[in-house]
Amino acid sequence: MKAAIIGGTGYGSIELVRLINKHPYLKIGSVVSNSQAGESFSEIYPHITDIIDQPLEIFDTESLCNKNDVVFLATPSGISKNLVPQLFEKGIMCIDLSGDFRLRSGKEYERWYKHSPSHEIFLHQATYGLSEIYSEEIKNSTLIANPGCYSTASLLGLLPIIKTNIVDLDSIIIDAKSGVSGAGRGLSITSHFAEINENLKAYKLGAHQHIPEIEQVLQDEAGSPITITFTPHLVPMTRGIMCTVYISLKEDVTTNEIHQLYSEFYKNKPFIRVRPEGTLPATKEVLGSNYCDIGLHVDPRTNRLTIISVIDNLVKGAAGQAIQNVNLMNGWDERTGLEDVPMYP
Amino acid sequence: MKAAIIGGTGYGSIELVRLINKHPYLKIGSVVSNSQAGESFSEIYPHITDIIDQPLEIFDTESLCNKNDVVFLATPSGISKNLVPQLFEKGIMCIDLSGDFRLRSGKEYERWYKHSPSHEIFLHQATYGLSEIYSEEIKNSTLIANPGCYSTASLLGLLPIIKTNIVDLDSIIIDAKSGVSGAGRGLSITSHFAEINENLKAYKLGAHQHIPEIEQVLQDEAGSPITITFTPHLVPMTRGIMCTVYISLKEDVTTNEIHQLYSEFYKNKPFIRVRPEGTLPATKEVLGSNYCDIGLHVDPRTNRLTIISVIDNLVKGAAGQAIQNVNLMNGWDERTGLEDVPMYP
Amino acid sequence: MKAAIIGGTGYGSIELVRLINKHPYLKIGSVVSNSQAGESFSEIYPHITDIIDQPLEIFDTESLCNKNDVVFLATPSGISKNLVPQLFEKGIMCIDLSGDFRLRSGKEYERWYKHSPSHEIFLHQATYGLSEIYSEEIKNSTLIANPGCYSTASLLGLLPIIKTNIVDLDSIIIDAKSGVSGAGRGLSITSHFAEINENLKAYKLGAHQHIPEIEQVLQDEAGSPITITFTPHLVPMTRGIMCTVYISLKEDVTTNEIHQLYSEFYKNKPFIRVRPEGTLPATKEVLGSNYCDIGLHVDPRTNRLTIISVIDNLVKGAAGQAIQNVNLMNGWDERTGLEDVPMYP
Amino acid sequence: MKAAIIGGTGYGSIELVRLINKHPYLKIGSVVSNSQAGESFSEIYPHITDIIDQPLEIFDTESLCNKNDVVFLATPSGISKNLVPQLFEKGIMCIDLSGDFRLRSGKEYERWYKHSPSHEIFLHQATYGLSEIYSEEIKNSTLIANPGCYSTASLLGLLPIIKTNIVDLDSIIIDAKSGVSGAGRGLSITSHFAEINENLKAYKLGAHQHIPEIEQVLQDEAGSPITITFTPHLVPMTRGIMCTVYISLKEDVTTNEIHQLYSEFYKNKPFIRVRPEGTLPATKEVLGSNYCDIGLHVDPRTNRLTIISVIDNLVKGAAGQAIQNVNLMNGWDERTGLEDVPMYP
Repeated sequence: MKAAIIGGTGYGSIELVRLINKHPYLKIGSVVSNSQAGESFSEIYPHITDIIDQPLEIFDTESLCNKNDVVFLATPSGISKNLVPQLFEKGIMCIDLSGDFRLRSGKEYERWYKHSPSHEIFLHQATYGLSEIYSEEIKNSTLIANPGCYSTASLLGLLPIIKTNIVDLDSIIIDAKSGVSGAGRGLSITSHFAEINENLKAYKLGAHQHIPEIEQVLQDEAGSPITITFTPHLVPMTRGIMCTVYISLKEDVTTNEIHQLYSEFYKNKPFIRVRPEGTLPATKEVLGSNYCDIGLHVDPRTNRLTIISVIDNLVKGAAGQAIQNVNLMNGWDERTGLEDVPMYP
Repeated sequence: MKAAIIGGTGYGSIELVRLINKHPYLKIGSVVSNSQAGESFSEIYPHITDIIDQPLEIFDTESLCNKNDVVFLATPSGISKNLVPQLFEKGIMCIDLSGDFRLRSGKEYERWYKHSPSHEIFLHQATYGLSEIYSEEIKNSTLIANPGCYSTASLLGLLPIIKTNIVDLDSIIIDAKSGVSGAGRGLSITSHFAEINENLKAYKLGAHQHIPEIEQVLQDEAGSPITITFTPHLVPMTRGIMCTVYISLKEDVTTNEIHQLYSEFYKNKPFIRVRPEGTLPATKEVLGSNYCDIGLHVDPRTNRLTIISVIDNLVKGAAGQAIQNVNLMNGWDERTGLEDVPMYP
Repeated sequence: MKAAIIGGTGYGSIELVRLINKHPYLKIGSVVSNSQAGESFSEIYPHITDIIDQPLEIFDTESLCNKNDVVFLATPSGISKNLVPQLFEKGIMCIDLSGDFRLRSGKEYERWYKHSPSHEIFLHQATYGLSEIYSEEIKNSTLIANPGCYSTASLLGLLPIIKTNIVDLDSIIIDAKSGVSGAGRGLSITSHFAEINENLKAYKLGAHQHIPEIEQVLQDEAGSPITITFTPHLVPMTRGIMCTVYISLKEDVTTNEIHQLYSEFYKNKPFIRVRPEGTLPATKEVLGSNYCDIGLHVDPRTNRLTIISVIDNLVKGAAGQAIQNVNLMNGWDERTGLEDVPMYP
Repeated sequence: MKAAIIGGTGYGSIELVRLINKHPYLKIGSVVSNSQAGESFSEIYPHITDIIDQPLEIFDTESLCNKNDVVFLATPSGISKNLVPQLFEKGIMCIDLSGDFRLRSGKEYERWYKHSPSHEIFLHQATYGLSEIYSEEIKNSTLIANPGCYSTASLLGLLPIIKTNIVDLDSIIIDAKSGVSGAGRGLSITSHFAEINENLKAYKLGAHQHIPEIEQVLQDEAGSPITITFTPHLVPMTRGIMCTVYISLKEDVTTNEIHQLYSEFYKNKPFIRVRPEGTLPATKEVLGSNYCDIGLHVDPRTNRLTIISVIDNLVKGAAGQAIQNVNLMNGWDERTGLEDVPMYP
């Protein structure tokens, strides 16, 4: 199968290139970048010299759909909402890595993204691509809203406990930390090396666009309204997200009981590794891989559960989960092309 | 005045050297290191070549007290409890940068530090050296228990709000992030470059020895028992601590009202910078300085207050606050020798 | 085929694990670590949890040779010289990643490594495993001395020009820069995060053990004695080596002519990418891959050629080239299992 | 004395702020930034909150000269050449940190900087501010061309040996490595965190604008034409420059003899630390300070001298040397305000 990548010069795209290259059933058909069309892809990213030297193309629905079987949209928010309708009409599989189709409510989209939303009809056509949770829906969908990086780590950490009766749903706090690649390749003083290196900063308190996405899924699964506190931080590293999640327990439960609950919940999910009691995952331990590793700790002093969940933001938080979804959509083993051991150190 | 530094080869000591060197009334008298006595200090730390080339000395109470007017103990926990009694008897000013004299209860010390405690009499003689809060007591003391790095950032962030009636004292969560210098110069796989670089990890969940220290002070100030959740993380940078503190508000308050409360609380405290509403401090913005910068944010969606407090762990979190305390003890302006602009970038 | 890894807890070994895992014809048979035998491999390296959870084994020739078809020795220098003779006798393929079999002269080994050498007979049995240059010899050998990381980058950069008559063989200077993982996982103040981060240092001037290895190969290829200046530096990053090589031209040659020479020399070598004129490779552009990228520049002002060659020290500089050699030894395509796109960013 | 800083929002300027703040005889008068005039300085650089909150001013010769006694120009190249003539006419002391007045030949300036040069008259009025070498000329000058960062480290490393007869002046190679702050605060993909972190790259081979500056001084001092090879590299750290300099010896000399020569040459120069034989300086060992540390090594195998010289690019390579020059111009001790111990770790 041939895959097209739209938004070719961002980090999401170049990570798709890396992963598609090792996928046995996928091959790169087109790489689209309206702003740099005609240029050689390997001049922009010299690390793919001799591997992919094709020129960047301009967006053209007709030609794209003729040459490709699946389209990955790795564009900034506000772009794919205009491209997907044309592609959807052609019946081609679309995986949108931006936030344009993640929220079912156009009003909420507008509030958090400050753009006008896509037409409601597409918002409802899109399947939220959290692979471990919605695999059945994904298999039957042709338009996937690939989850946000923070949302993936937060939700995979929270979902097993959220459906039980033992937690206080009003107590959820997510302290999130991300490497800088999450901010993309666009130039900004907040991604300038000398400003970020040896520095740690919090940003967008109570205002990050992944908040409504996380709340939407939590509410769907818990069956009641949930409001979270979410604080993202920028860490001086390139890749990796850690979400440290706090939630109050309504009854006495041990770490061991929580551990069993999570192990059971994820027992057939090859990319989720619930770490042994007494150990905690670090971001580097999933580097370059599609794993989401989870550590659990109940503090009997406060009767609060702390969940540590880590992913590589560009893999499980973007390109890797996108491939996993394509695997599901095609009835392939979800691990296909994603079986790499994390790169360590 | 002459100052002695005990525990000469650690990062706390070498930072004391840097700060004493620019202090107008202090001069280095002795540098003690039993393990490396006789060696030249500048062979261990070549950056002080031509500045301080004196040999390291062995610990000897008599000689130390003859040659010096103040003693800084920058030893690992469990050491100074044995040295301070001898020094205290001589009446020399002692600033202990370790945890040995911070907890009033020997039992608590034993529980968290896994060492036997100092004699109760000394635990009660020691003044907790959080300079902004206990300046009066510090002025009248000759034995200072210099606060822990995490404790300093956490307490300075929490104390203004803790004495009000508007917060739920059971809801305190401190998500703390530290640079690696906090772990000292001792070799360990958890400080090994290739393991830490491009990595982020949480550690000692519910078990860090700064927990009882923070709780002791919070309880003293609030007048009621307080139990906190505290999660330290190791960030791939050398210096800097950020505490992201969460606390639930019992009534509707705006960020602006909280900001006024903090500004008022710290109005004559030159090292505390309450940042303008809508802005948040980053760790690099206090690098090399004695500042503690505080950012405040109330999320009306959850009615939770988030406090971001940052320090340089080796300055306000250790050597700088120690100097500030010596300034107070001697009746000097507390800023003496500590007026550097942070080093940026 | 089953592969054994000896020296299981170092970075060379864990990189072999990553690469063997994606190799279609290789599988891990045994992982040997005398110092940690019996322990679970994934407790030491949690990133391989659920992938390789087998216990570490003690070294035993008999059992090793029964269970495996090829042995990788990723031990510190001075160890494999004692193990290889036993393995060699059994006829099993051995790839030694240490320096023990790289120098043909035992006397030279002793001078640079400060250990007594292996028996001369084995030093002469070993084939120097610089895959691009000695592929024919490697195909017919069962004992490979896998090249040093600095040596690989230096030699691949120098060899095309060294056989011409246009350079002054007495003028070679190699200014080498390496990430810290090259120093291994052993604890040392020179790998301590706070000492390395935001720091750059040169070390072992004129004394690095890769010097005689580089000179031996240069002499073999040039047919005359060559003495080089080699200066290694430690760069605050985990992976990557860059060698900036200087050599004087005896006649007027253009960058373009040199570029053609190199392109021709490496035309069928899939892992060598001679970069287009006017561009230079960066270390991150080969991260995680087996590529060696080369940039060339002639300065007409000085008539000196500068060669920039970059590798991932743990891949082409160690584990990757070891796999490449096993591919050659078995008559497989040398790219087998090594076709990954570099991980960027 | 009051000091004006022109080009207020760059890293050179903010470092001048840090140093002027601790200088006993200097105070900041004006900070000029035409592009951001009217804005508060501490909004752009929050780390100076409560220290310097004054607004940025527009450039106005009259007002500047009325309010200030000395002017630092920390503008990009091509700007100060237009401002200095107006200031010079007023007789105010000018220290230009850009390259506009470093080359005596306008033609050379145009060749390397690709701008039209300043008028020849000013190029000859300017004194090259390499403080240790030209202190007498600096004392009698009112217009200082402050040296480039690479030039400072290179020249201080080379000058003692260049005047002897024992070296081959055609053999000079400078392999230079710099932290990223040297590229300034202007946004560029080559200063983008995710591109620089864990990466090492060479750039501008044979084309860096510090080449003619270094050659001009070497020629002045050696009395004969000198052409150098100079290769700058970008290292993933914020501050610090190391120049590894190679030069061939025409006769047999020992490291010890070279060491004595350097020690003698710099014996009354407080900011130059010639490191003990057998040791080498690292960049972090001068961090935040005005030191230039030098290590020396003769390799008897090749009869080549290697000189390692390190500075903090923003201090001795820019703002610190500028202050040192103002000290000299005013007849103050050259160490005034510059006596800080380097910040380590």
